[in-house]
Formats: sequence, structure tokens, C-alpha cells
Amino acid sequence: MSTGCFYGVGTGPGCPELLTLKAVRVIEECPVVAYFGKHENRGHALNTVRSRLRDDHTMLPMLYPVTTELPHDCDEYRQRIEAFFDAAAEEAAAHLTAGRSVAVLSEGDPFFYGSFMHIFLRLRDRFPNEVIPGVPAMLAGAAQLPRPVAMRDDVLSVIPGTLPDAELRDTLAMAQAAVVMKVGRNLPRIRRALEAVGHAERAWYVERASMGEQRVMPLVEAPEERAPYFSMVILTGTGARV
Amino acid sequence: MSTGCFYGVGTGPGCPELLTLKAVRVIEECPVVAYFGKHENRGHALNTVRSRLRDDHTMLPMLYPVTTELPHDCDEYRQRIEAFFDAAAEEAAAHLTAGRSVAVLSEGDPFFYGSFMHIFLRLRDRFPNEVIPGVPAMLAGAAQLPRPVAMRDDVLSVIPGTLPDAELRDTLAMAQAAVVMKVGRNLPRIRRALEAVGHAERAWYVERASMGEQRVMPLVEAPEERAPYFSMVILTGTGARV
Repeated sequence: MSTGCFYGVGTGPGCPELLTLKAVRVIEECPVVAYFGKHENRGHALNTVRSRLRDDHTMLPMLYPVTTELPHDCDEYRQRIEAFFDAAAEEAAAHLTAGRSVAVLSEGDPFFYGSFMHIFLRLRDRFPNEVIPGVPAMLAGAAQLPRPVAMRDDVLSVIPGTLPDAELRDTLAMAQAAVVMKVGRNLPRIRRALEAVGHAERAWYVERASMGEQRVMPLVEAPEERAPYFSMVILTGTGARV
Repeated sequence: MSTGCFYGVGTGPGCPELLTLKAVRVIEECPVVAYFGKHENRGHALNTVRSRLRDDHTMLPMLYPVTTELPHDCDEYRQRIEAFFDAAAEEAAAHLTAGRSVAVLSEGDPFFYGSFMHIFLRLRDRFPNEVIPGVPAMLAGAAQLPRPVAMRDDVLSVIPGTLPDAELRDTLAMAQAAVVMKVGRNLPRIRRALEAVGHAERAWYVERASMGEQRVMPLVEAPEERAPYFSMVILTGTGARV
């Protein structure tokens, strides 16, 4: 019996119509569909593909034991999260060894941040695999703006909002076009960093791009405090070299 | 009679299966399909959607009068290219005024570099419009590599290979994860810049990602001289702060 193949399936930014044809085919063909979530929150990737799932799909939930309850640089967090990824990878491996292919759902694109890489790095040398690229959330956000996010010779910086204050400020100071991801509770820090480097006035705030209940506004009009997890801050490029 | 709507339709990296469901629907619903090309070269966006086109689609070619024959910073180039975009936008406007919606095909994503923005900026205030995001070529390239392009707190820099030598070098020197686009005849300059800042050994070269005849190799094994237009150089992130 041959082993199964595991797929990192980019499910795009959240709108089911922004799935690729290939993502739909692979999900429909794989007997096992894995997804990340936490307790009752089953994640947007699963919501995005829900209409493609059948009763004969075996669902493999990969539920985080801890997310923001512990600081990410403490030993306890690291140990618990590594043990979780080890166990999740072994659950997938059991299906693969038995010849059942596994589609691992990945919000946006599997290799553009996100959790799939933890499974991939553990299993890539043991089983055949393929990464199906997807539309990243940042481009669904950019699609809502009155200008392109990047044009001509613009350098575009993709910046996690989780960076420490000084790095966030320094990176934004040098940015031409920029997308700040992982906004959430980092929004006040991102705003202060943009103000410090003089870019706050031209920044856009985009919440839940393509998902319904989408909101788009200049950053200066955005919520004061924390934002939903699915939000981003965008500086569009000018097309002119700086 | 109401006017038509114009769409920037991201056609993804080149594989027809990496079209989104929404791109397919919009192309099938629009009576007019516009695409960029040059003379006999009709462009990859058109190739990607060819099986979706019907005899009753009106095709609107937007064919560049000049691309690399003139330096892009000379007056003649600027005048000819601006006149071309003006004329192309007016051709689209004639259909829109007559109530016919127009799908403007855009390789990758419409707002992530590319020609659509020239039509968009000329028509956005005159006609209803929508941008359909697509899978960017850089993520189809990243999907071929043995590691994610960006993870955890990586900052990802997207860098046009057309930048002047000094800017290219300085931008690459500071990059954690990076994708260099628009490689083509700039490959030797990009290679020299990466060597100068000590990143050449860890760079990947990806040609024609997802298009068939795809090639992936360490940059040190890549062609000496010019590369095809559809090639890129990728530095994968480490997930560790620098």
C-alpha cells in the first residue's frame, strides 16, 4: 500500500469564492481534512470551505492548547506548543501511513506565515507533499483601497504587528509600501509607531477583508483600542523611488 | 441604461487551476475581456483563462507600443506609454458607457504591481469597479521551496529587481525574508547584490512557477546571464528575529 500525500491548502482570505479551483479539487479528493482552531473556535479556514465538506470526509481538528494566555517567550508556552504540533503531526502521519491523503487547511497561503509550516517541517521528509498557494489576506485588504498597494519600483514590506516597539518603528520608518499583519491587540502600538515615523496620516485600516462585515477606513478613524484578529494596516506605495 | 462595471481580475501565477472561483465567474459574466500584451505575445493572463473564453466574448487587446526598446526614464518612452494607457482606458470606457462590463485580466493580483493600475487610476472615478484579488506569482514560487517564505515575526520584503544597484544592495542587506521580482535581464545584478551582502548562498531561484516547465534551484546553480521574465529569487525567512 502506498502512503498518502499531505497538502497545505491555501483557503484564501475568507470569502468562499476566493478559493482556487485547485484548493476545491484537493479538498474534495482528500479523505482527511485537517484544520487549526481552538476549543469552540474552529477557525476561518474551515468556515471558508464548509460547503465543500461531505459526510465521508474524516475531520482532523488540530486545536491549540494555549494561544495568548501565556507569553510566547516563556518555557511553558514553548513546551506546550511544541508538544501540540508533535502530536498533531503524528495524527496526520497515522492517516498518511494508512494511505489516506490529508488536506491541511491554511488561511490565506500555507507558506505565508500561519500554522501549516509546523506540520510541514515535521513531515516533509517522511511523506509526499504539495503546497497549494492561496490568495493572502493582505491582497484581499489591498483590493479595497483606492490605490494599488505596490506599483513600479515600490519595495513592499510585510510586517508582523507583533514586533517589539523599536523594531516596528524602525521597519516602518524605512518602508515605502507596507502591510502590517497580526494587528489585533497590537493596534495601539502600531498606531504609535506610525505616528512616530510620520506615516499615520496616509495609513489605511482594513478589517475582515472579503469576509462580510468588512470595514475599510483611514487609520485615523479606526478603533482606539484592540482590533479583531483579522485586521491589517496598509501603506500604499507611490510608484516613485524614495 | 446603466453603465458597465470594470473588474481587475487577478488570474494568478499561470496555472489555470490557480484561478479563483470568483475570477472564473466574473470572466464568464463579463461580455468584454481586456488583456495586456505586445504584438504577437498575448501574455500569460490570457493563456491562463483561455478555456473560459467563448465566441461571444468581445476581446479587447491592450498592446504595448514599446516595452524594453527605450529606457523608461526618457521622455519619448513616458509620452508613448502614457498615450497608450490613455487610449486603452478610453476603449474600455466606450464599452462601459454602452453598459457592457469589462474584465481586465491581470497576471497574479491586480494591485500587486502590474499594468491594471494604469487603467484603474484613469477610470475609478467614472465607473463602478471591483478588484478581484489573485494568487501572486511570488507565493506560487514560494510553494516550491523546502521552507516557508515567511514565518512567525519575519519581515518579508518584496523587491523589484529593477532597482538601481545601490538600492538593491541596501534593501537586500536589511532583508530577513525577501522575494525579488522582475528578474529577467536583471539577474546578474541581483546576484552581485546578494553576493555583496552575503545572502547569495541561501537564495533560491524559481522560474515559471506553476506554469509547466517550472525550474527550482539554489541561486548558485541558476543561469549566469538573463533569466525569463517569469522568474524570481527568494530568501526564505528563519522565524528568528535578527
